[in-house]
Amino acid sequence: MAVYTEVSDAALAEFLAAYDIGTLLSCKGIAEGVENSNYFLHTTGGSFILTLYEKRVQEQDLPFFVGLMEHLARRGLACPQPIRDRSGTALGRLCGRPAALVSFLEGVSLSSPGPEHCREVGVALARLHAAGRDFAMVRANALSVGSWRPLFEQAGGQADSVSPGLTERTLADLAVLEAGWPRDLPGGVIHADLFTDNVFFIGDALSGLIDFYFACTDAFAYDLAVCLNAWCFDARGSFHRDMATAMIAGYESQRPLEPAEVEALPMLCRGAALRFMLTRLVDWLNVPPGALVKPKDPLEYDRRLTFHRQARSAADYGRAA
Amino acid sequence: MAVYTEVSDAALAEFLAAYDIGTLLSCKGIAEGVENSNYFLHTTGGSFILTLYEKRVQEQDLPFFVGLMEHLARRGLACPQPIRDRSGTALGRLCGRPAALVSFLEGVSLSSPGPEHCREVGVALARLHAAGRDFAMVRANALSVGSWRPLFEQAGGQADSVSPGLTERTLADLAVLEAGWPRDLPGGVIHADLFTDNVFFIGDALSGLIDFYFACTDAFAYDLAVCLNAWCFDARGSFHRDMATAMIAGYESQRPLEPAEVEALPMLCRGAALRFMLTRLVDWLNVPPGALVKPKDPLEYDRRLTFHRQARSAADYGRAA
Repeated sequence: MAVYTEVSDAALAEFLAAYDIGTLLSCKGIAEGVENSNYFLHTTGGSFILTLYEKRVQEQDLPFFVGLMEHLARRGLACPQPIRDRSGTALGRLCGRPAALVSFLEGVSLSSPGPEHCREVGVALARLHAAGRDFAMVRANALSVGSWRPLFEQAGGQADSVSPGLTERTLADLAVLEAGWPRDLPGGVIHADLFTDNVFFIGDALSGLIDFYFACTDAFAYDLAVCLNAWCFDARGSFHRDMATAMIAGYESQRPLEPAEVEALPMLCRGAALRFMLTRLVDWLNVPPGALVKPKDPLEYDRRLTFHRQARSAADYGRAA
Repeated sequence: MAVYTEVSDAALAEFLAAYDIGTLLSCKGIAEGVENSNYFLHTTGGSFILTLYEKRVQEQDLPFFVGLMEHLARRGLACPQPIRDRSGTALGRLCGRPAALVSFLEGVSLSSPGPEHCREVGVALARLHAAGRDFAMVRANALSVGSWRPLFEQAGGQADSVSPGLTERTLADLAVLEAGWPRDLPGGVIHADLFTDNVFFIGDALSGLIDFYFACTDAFAYDLAVCLNAWCFDARGSFHRDMATAMIAGYESQRPLEPAEVEALPMLCRGAALRFMLTRLVDWLNVPPGALVKPKDPLEYDRRLTFHRQARSAADYGRAA
């Protein structure tokens, strides 16, 4: 939950005056996302989300994120559509911060998804990859393999205080991943953070994807590996094979994996788990005083790594041979 | 801002199944109110606020609050209307807490209201008093004069650490207020907390009143005194006479004050300021570790008290003679 910046009605009125969206009817700070401040806006022109980008988002990345949402929405993907103001720009400023207005997307995040939902996520992920194919901008994945050792070094010597042996396990993972990380897989735009809170459903039907603020240019199969980690394990680290089988089948119903991607899947899943373990670990050890957001438990991903370390092939992730 | 209780989609679906409000389209935790958890709900049947009552609200008071909103909405007051479930009850349980669903009210709170808005608030307050006249339930004002000395004693010897001399000033206020508090003024249902964040406007027109969780049975003029404190002073404690004149005139356009109410106004304003100074002081000195809500500054009301102590008559509050 997060609203870091309080927007006065006067500042909001001035900001909205640049847009053709009618009269403001209501504005509520919403407890969603951990990086930015988000407001739900209702006007005579419709419903919108207003996002104020806080300092964890690099301002130079915003044209990529906003341009990507615009590109994907134009290609029919159900995602927030940036609203341009009368001068044609979709990125404004409000309360000293970069700010954007996007269309409001209906739907509810699932706290206990089943295999049928995982299949839908696989389908939507492959469609996202297809819709992004002709997006012209490029953004390197700042949280890929090259960033993991420096991230771990930020955690300093404190990893073992979070879990005994975590330092040794992580160093072993890093050695394997740095040596064997696949480099030439098919790629393009990936979401890179498609967790349950970023996927909306109405009833059992997937209604949209949100939060493109980790999107980047990287291997498609890595995005699938992120989703397998995010959706197909429970908090105790138990793998749900039926959910993974459904997710991969959904993905492959739109875009069959190439042999190199199939072969790389265990390595990609292990890497994705390490990426989330490491960012969570750094956040866990650096909770600022007065923080409004409870840090997420890095050990949830340490437990997934136990599974990934022993996986030998895509079959271990339930992919039908 | 506050969402204390996270509601899972499964728990929410089970709760909503008892209501005839259609299919759930979205649910967002909103950063509003400091006492309860609030969610904005959109369904095929409309827009709603779902409130989970947290521990600061006494469960035995909920029938009064919910019954009052229903009564006022039925009399045409723009306030949240409780939604009854199929069994006819408007108070349910969700995640182990009492919970209620009310209609969503459009509008925006003002951060910098002017005299024209204060006039509207006066009008709305008098209409609220009129609409509540035939409400059958009674709830004593738990935060009236009898509670102030015990509240101050909770702050223990720490008041002077917040502001030098605060103990002496408060004891003097208590002596004056306890001796002279008016007892036989016209009364009935009052809101008792009609601050700017509880009044919505669309453009310059007042669109509704929310947050009836301090409502009680007390003197009408005390409610006006709360509003004069909340709306007609700035954070530095400066009194804005034009705003108070407009608010009182708005109130009296609907319900002229009786002579005893006019005479009591300085005492009521001083008491209302002390009430908010004291509850803020206790909260200020008792911020729980990990609190999500920043406590409000008690000294804003200490500064208002400086004004109230020297006021001699309603004319000092800008009431036209």
